[in-house]
Amino acid sequence: MMGHLIFVGLGLSRPEDMSMKALVALRGCDEVFAEFYTSRLIDACQAELEEFIGRKITVLNRKEVEEGTIILKAARQHKVAFMVAGDPMSATTHVDLRLRAAEEGITTELVHGVSIFTAAAAAFGLQPYKFGRAVTIPFPEPGYLPASPYDYILENYSRGLHTLVLLDIREEEDRYMTANEAVRWLLDAEQRLGKGLLNDETIICAGARIGSTGQRLLAGDPQTILGADMGPPLHCLVIPGRLHFMEAHALVSFASAPRDILEED
Amino acid sequence: MMGHLIFVGLGLSRPEDMSMKALVALRGCDEVFAEFYTSRLIDACQAELEEFIGRKITVLNRKEVEEGTIILKAARQHKVAFMVAGDPMSATTHVDLRLRAAEEGITTELVHGVSIFTAAAAAFGLQPYKFGRAVTIPFPEPGYLPASPYDYILENYSRGLHTLVLLDIREEEDRYMTANEAVRWLLDAEQRLGKGLLNDETIICAGARIGSTGQRLLAGDPQTILGADMGPPLHCLVIPGRLHFMEAHALVSFASAPRDILEED
Repeated sequence: MMGHLIFVGLGLSRPEDMSMKALVALRGCDEVFAEFYTSRLIDACQAELEEFIGRKITVLNRKEVEEGTIILKAARQHKVAFMVAGDPMSATTHVDLRLRAAEEGITTELVHGVSIFTAAAAAFGLQPYKFGRAVTIPFPEPGYLPASPYDYILENYSRGLHTLVLLDIREEEDRYMTANEAVRWLLDAEQRLGKGLLNDETIICAGARIGSTGQRLLAGDPQTILGADMGPPLHCLVIPGRLHFMEAHALVSFASAPRDILEED
Repeated sequence: MMGHLIFVGLGLSRPEDMSMKALVALRGCDEVFAEFYTSRLIDACQAELEEFIGRKITVLNRKEVEEGTIILKAARQHKVAFMVAGDPMSATTHVDLRLRAAEEGITTELVHGVSIFTAAAAAFGLQPYKFGRAVTIPFPEPGYLPASPYDYILENYSRGLHTLVLLDIREEEDRYMTANEAVRWLLDAEQRLGKGLLNDETIICAGARIGSTGQRLLAGDPQTILGADMGPPLHCLVIPGRLHFMEAHALVSFASAPRDILEED
């Protein structure tokens, strides 16, 4: 008998954020794998997850997921789950793994989870229709300063569109980029590229631990975000484009944006 | 004592698609309201939802949600939930309602749900980073033929970006636009506007009941989608931009796309 491989999205924060469907699927599996290097649950450790689903979890590192050997070997004969935070398939390696499984005749299935791609918009009260492409800001590396995140945000902005800015994760070093570091990165890029994306009054939305009980939202100018303590990871930014009146109100009410953004519309 | 208003996202298909957190929140409420005109669960009726959460549900129509009177009156004194399919806050009226509650001193809270905005990308194996703004195609009305969905798709496409195309819902008439009707709309727009978005070989991805057990995915040229029976609603389209090799493979493997798209990369 060929096996079965279920990709399960856990959502954002706690084991309870997964769907009932996910819980039933996980409990019905012979083996449960996970990766937490593309993202991780904000507010739960492996032991809590294991207790919640009643199964031991084998956490794989990036190399092991990319090779795929361990998961595919198990999935050839058993019913296997592969869990990730958020929604699965957002990393190319997940798609690759699913394709390789399908090619071997292993049946695959997705159980969706809540993703930061939509939760960030909802938390800030920004319309999901008005987001352009999302970007990720990488940790600065000597000799590697990509312009694309800045350019893509500017491209969205010039069309009146919001940009979700995801922040680099280096799970193996326990490093998660903060909203402050990301704003610093953007200010540096502004200085370097000088295309006028940011000035002293640009409104930036910073979100910390979105979807958790300890969620914090702050909207303000670059210096305000630079000086704010947003607490532990995960953080993200949204660079708003043209704000609808209702969106501006939401930023004032739920993210302490300065009231003068209400008059700009 | 002031009340509390929780916005709960139910996800896409079945009561079991909601998170444990949502279930606990709903069971702990004094009153539960819902609207199903912006979207609805693919595969569950009100009675099933009521049995699942163990509460009667008051379903409100568009006018009642926009006025807000019924919900706000209840939320002034009680713990009240307002449920919607997908993730809440994707409609401006949800944001408006939350703002009005907050202004009255009613505390509000979001419990996120799985949204078609990310689930569609995942189902097709398309990278969420490569989506531009989403669009909605409206039912044709005499004298009202907006160009914007066509133009926005073209704008995304010319940047190599995918577009999620949501389809009009007229819940009060039990009318849900099909993938076929949407492709017809796009072909008509091509004829009318003639900017070269679509030709006979353009690949269109059609999704039906994404996230449900009866999900169906099909990727092919316009005539293929026009001639396909995708079954009951909800449907959506994705118009892909530039396909990464892995994305093309995913469309072939999971959505029966013609194999020649593999050679284009």
